[in-house]
Amino acid sequence: MSVLKNDRLLKALLRQPVDVTPVWMMRQAGRYLPEYRATREKAGSFLNLCKTPELACEVTLQPLARFPLDAAILFSDILTIPDAMGLGLYFTEGEGPRFERPVRNEQDIAALGSPDPEQELRYVMDAVRTIRRELQGRVPLIGFSGSPWTLATYMVEGGGAKNFALSKGMMFDRPDLMHALLGKVADAVTAYLNAQVAAGAQALMIFDTWGGVLSPRDYEEFSLAYMRRVIGGLTREAEGRRVPVILFTKGGGQWLPEMADSGCDGLGVDWTTDLKDARRAVGDRVALQGNMDPCLLYASPERIRKGVADVLESFGTGPGHVFNLGHGIHPNIEPEHAAAMVEAVHELSPPYHR
Amino acid sequence: MSVLKNDRLLKALLRQPVDVTPVWMMRQAGRYLPEYRATREKAGSFLNLCKTPELACEVTLQPLARFPLDAAILFSDILTIPDAMGLGLYFTEGEGPRFERPVRNEQDIAALGSPDPEQELRYVMDAVRTIRRELQGRVPLIGFSGSPWTLATYMVEGGGAKNFALSKGMMFDRPDLMHALLGKVADAVTAYLNAQVAAGAQALMIFDTWGGVLSPRDYEEFSLAYMRRVIGGLTREAEGRRVPVILFTKGGGQWLPEMADSGCDGLGVDWTTDLKDARRAVGDRVALQGNMDPCLLYASPERIRKGVADVLESFGTGPGHVFNLGHGIHPNIEPEHAAAMVEAVHELSPPYHR
Repeated sequence: MSVLKNDRLLKALLRQPVDVTPVWMMRQAGRYLPEYRATREKAGSFLNLCKTPELACEVTLQPLARFPLDAAILFSDILTIPDAMGLGLYFTEGEGPRFERPVRNEQDIAALGSPDPEQELRYVMDAVRTIRRELQGRVPLIGFSGSPWTLATYMVEGGGAKNFALSKGMMFDRPDLMHALLGKVADAVTAYLNAQVAAGAQALMIFDTWGGVLSPRDYEEFSLAYMRRVIGGLTREAEGRRVPVILFTKGGGQWLPEMADSGCDGLGVDWTTDLKDARRAVGDRVALQGNMDPCLLYASPERIRKGVADVLESFGTGPGHVFNLGHGIHPNIEPEHAAAMVEAVHELSPPYHR
Repeated sequence: MSVLKNDRLLKALLRQPVDVTPVWMMRQAGRYLPEYRATREKAGSFLNLCKTPELACEVTLQPLARFPLDAAILFSDILTIPDAMGLGLYFTEGEGPRFERPVRNEQDIAALGSPDPEQELRYVMDAVRTIRRELQGRVPLIGFSGSPWTLATYMVEGGGAKNFALSKGMMFDRPDLMHALLGKVADAVTAYLNAQVAAGAQALMIFDTWGGVLSPRDYEEFSLAYMRRVIGGLTREAEGRRVPVILFTKGGGQWLPEMADSGCDGLGVDWTTDLKDARRAVGDRVALQGNMDPCLLYASPERIRKGVADVLESFGTGPGHVFNLGHGIHPNIEPEHAAAMVEAVHELSPPYHR
């Protein structure tokens, strides 16, 4: 493995001093880039793009060629695990991801496979290895997974949910079943993330996209508890360095203190919480990642620069901040606007690190 | 006007003692009721249902015939104001509300009408009068409006938004335009709500459906400030009683203290915040309305009863609680499940009022 030339991200996530605030964007390899759309076209389908390591590597590196980002993030789908457990993932035009065999009862849960990441998910591990080789140590590579709760909602609903009728129905009426499902998924997520680290991922992020639709008590019992369990089972060192773990619950601003005690190193924060309040809530326990409103990238470069300045000022001085959007970059953003954001972070952040 | 026989809602919103916790449901007159679907069918279109006072009255009263609810809420659409301002509201199958003439620039804002509620919105006022007459004082009637920010997002987007690209784009790049729009909408909302009170509404609710997609600073500047302005202009007494005002920002759990200082009497709380935390945050300043996860109504009546008990216990003893769901009732809920909730509130709440 090459020596890491830019380790700002890893340092910031461990709350160690850096020269400038590191920056990357959730969904930075995505549809807002014309070169991504070209590769996606070449791949024929989204799933084929995910399952072809060379193409997944190609799109992972595309944003790095355009912007001086401080991290790469593995290009993949969050539903690779349920697919590998036997649910049969497919994509429909306009309707998003669907499963051929959703999980609805005891039998369905019993039938779930325990995927070996180097077998059923080998294409992901091959992508990680390919990306690491091609990165040549320029920036660290972030591996990721969906949270157990988030994956379970898709598995029970059979795809994206509007009201979470089936998944919450199971959670409320048959908590025993939901816990059995979450336990299996948590084990699969743990193995998957550890395999990514073994293949070369240098930091990990857990996306809890749907934890924020739960009440505080249900969030603790059905989402956070299983993320804690995953984190407890993770390899935390590789290539002689700590592998930091970032936890992100969209809409979880009220639960940051509990999340900070999960064993993670950093917390993703969406834009509905001020970083100064988030910092007050978590103290010195974890780093914070975020949190510009992704819609600010619709505005002019001057306005974007002001938005960056506001986020930097809200976090304030000292270590422990990774700049990011508060959610994935929208597909219809001008790449020049993303460039303005990245540039502004590097230009405006040094005073906060003196 | 008839003497009000059941004034639990009004008392609870003013934090006065009651015998049992009053209960109603957001969207209680809605698609989950077969009799609503029949009237909707008879009306021919959703818009016609809203614009025909007798039919709006009919659906408003339907849930009261089924459940011993403690309030009626005017059946109407939140987009009546922009329609009356000249935008041309229409509904498309599967895509929801659309405007023929969205607001995109200075000229569009200058061209907006100042609707006279007893002219362009007379059908709403007639509905209020008809409902009051038919209610015969059984329970109070709640009038409502969308918040200025929420209405402005629809007006700029031309309908429902996915990413709020256009409305947030205007907010970030042309805050002067957005403020001009919000000012006009706030004046129209104030006149509209006052006309509802004059027509017979006994409490008011402001639905800030999309305030929760803003950052804290943008929420204060573009949503809360205009709700404060609306509240400041409202008639607060009618028929010798105070007309309580409820403010509800979906996803606004982190901003309850600021919302409590808006001049309102009660705050709607969604299910992502525990009422005990909400109560701690707002102290004795306002009543709280909510906040059972609407998905709990997918579960069994026994589980629903437990959910009701949890919410009652979280609020605790003393006055100032109006039981509700944390969001509108979903369209595919069994009416019997709503009945189980209402019954449980009345059965389980007396100990909290001794």
